Amino acid sequence: MRRCARSADPSVRVGCDIASIREVRETYARFGSRYAQRVLQLDLNESDAVEFRAETLAGRFAALEAVSKVLDARHHGLVPADIAVSTSATGRPVVTLSGVAAQRAGELGIRSWDVSISHDGGFAIAVAVASCDSQYRHGHLLQLRKAIP
Amino acid sequence: MRRCARSADPSVRVGCDIASIREVRETYARFGSRYAQRVLQLDLNESDAVEFRAETLAGRFAALEAVSKVLDARHHGLVPADIAVSTSATGRPVVTLSGVAAQRAGELGIRSWDVSISHDGGFAIAVAVASCDSQYRHGHLLQLRKAIP
Amino acid sequence: MRRCARSADPSVRVGCDIASIREVRETYARFGSRYAQRVLQLDLNESDAVEFRAETLAGRFAALEAVSKVLDARHHGLVPADIAVSTSATGRPVVTLSGVAAQRAGELGIRSWDVSISHDGGFAIAVAVASCDSQYRHGHLLQLRKAIP
Repeated sequence: MRRCARSADPSVRVGCDIASIREVRETYARFGSRYAQRVLQLDLNESDAVEFRAETLAGRFAALEAVSKVLDARHHGLVPADIAVSTSATGRPVVTLSGVAAQRAGELGIRSWDVSISHDGGFAIAVAVASCDSQYRHGHLLQLRKAIP
Repeated sequence: MRRCARSADPSVRVGCDIASIREVRETYARFGSRYAQRVLQLDLNESDAVEFRAETLAGRFAALEAVSKVLDARHHGLVPADIAVSTSATGRPVVTLSGVAAQRAGELGIRSWDVSISHDGGFAIAVAVASCDSQYRHGHLLQLRKAIP
Repeated sequence: MRRCARSADPSVRVGCDIASIREVRETYARFGSRYAQRVLQLDLNESDAVEFRAETLAGRFAALEAVSKVLDARHHGLVPADIAVSTSATGRPVVTLSGVAAQRAGELGIRSWDVSISHDGGFAIAVAVASCDSQYRHGHLLQLRKAIP
């Protein structure tokens, strides 16, 4: 029987997330703009409608979760502060990693990211993809081997 | 602190969309089959159940949106008519670009597309991925540079 | 007019699925743990809360559907038993193919998989990506040509 399993190091990694906007709105109502700023690095305009702010928050939250899943964040002890999703001039989400998250991305050989966000009917979803460089990956493994005496 | 941001030109691009089927059904009720034909290039069988038609429409609509996001359509002034999603003989969604959308895909070095659609419980989602050829991308940039005197 | 269609053999393939947790819960209530074991290869802990089990089932089900879509399963007569999604030690979904599904993956030149699952607000979604090796693909096609006298 032929078998074909997910590689330990796939050359394209994916993470997805679905977030109920109602639940994000409740969290926002409880923690207010501090939640938005600290967790989501998002400066919301207080004059915007509550619903608009909740949608934006939920989308940003889903994007963070999607990137976290690409990095296996839960297992590798990554902190949310090391993953930032902002918005480019053209309106596309931009991923910026620092600290342990950036190190983990390096170990996985990730050389480029892309993230997309959508919301409708009370839900936000996000999908993140990362393409990995196998050469870099092998280079990294070699370095690890050399480090072991 | 190490940093790893989304590249300006990721080698795999992604777009996702979630669409409430109820909202699509309401639009359809208002604009009828003209909406389906013009925007979604979809010839619906009027004998099909309304719910089936709404699901199909919402799925097609989500697929169009997902492809648009890969192309940064809103920022680049792409018109919906330049992006078509149809269904292959095997039932898979097929992307066909023309005009400005095809030109934009060329600039991004996109060499292949894939799109997937799903619906359940009142929602349709779609995810589009495009793989980009860095060689082509550089070739394109070189051509652009040569074109500048 | 320039045109750019989805390649017959994209180098990155995608499949997505959305599943209403309520519907999965109803199926589970009717078929019980046999459904979970046979279709989803999932041994649920009967002491877990019903809601937790329904979420886990719906996520696993969505992942199976997402992988099936990457493989064009419906068109190629793949049986669900040939596609297994399990969970790695680090909590990531792992795809294992056998029989016709593994053969189909070989024909598509798939060399690595990644899958991500998420649930919230009564829905589970999953996205699967597969990266394909064009060299293998061509190699495979050559083999096919040689096999034809």
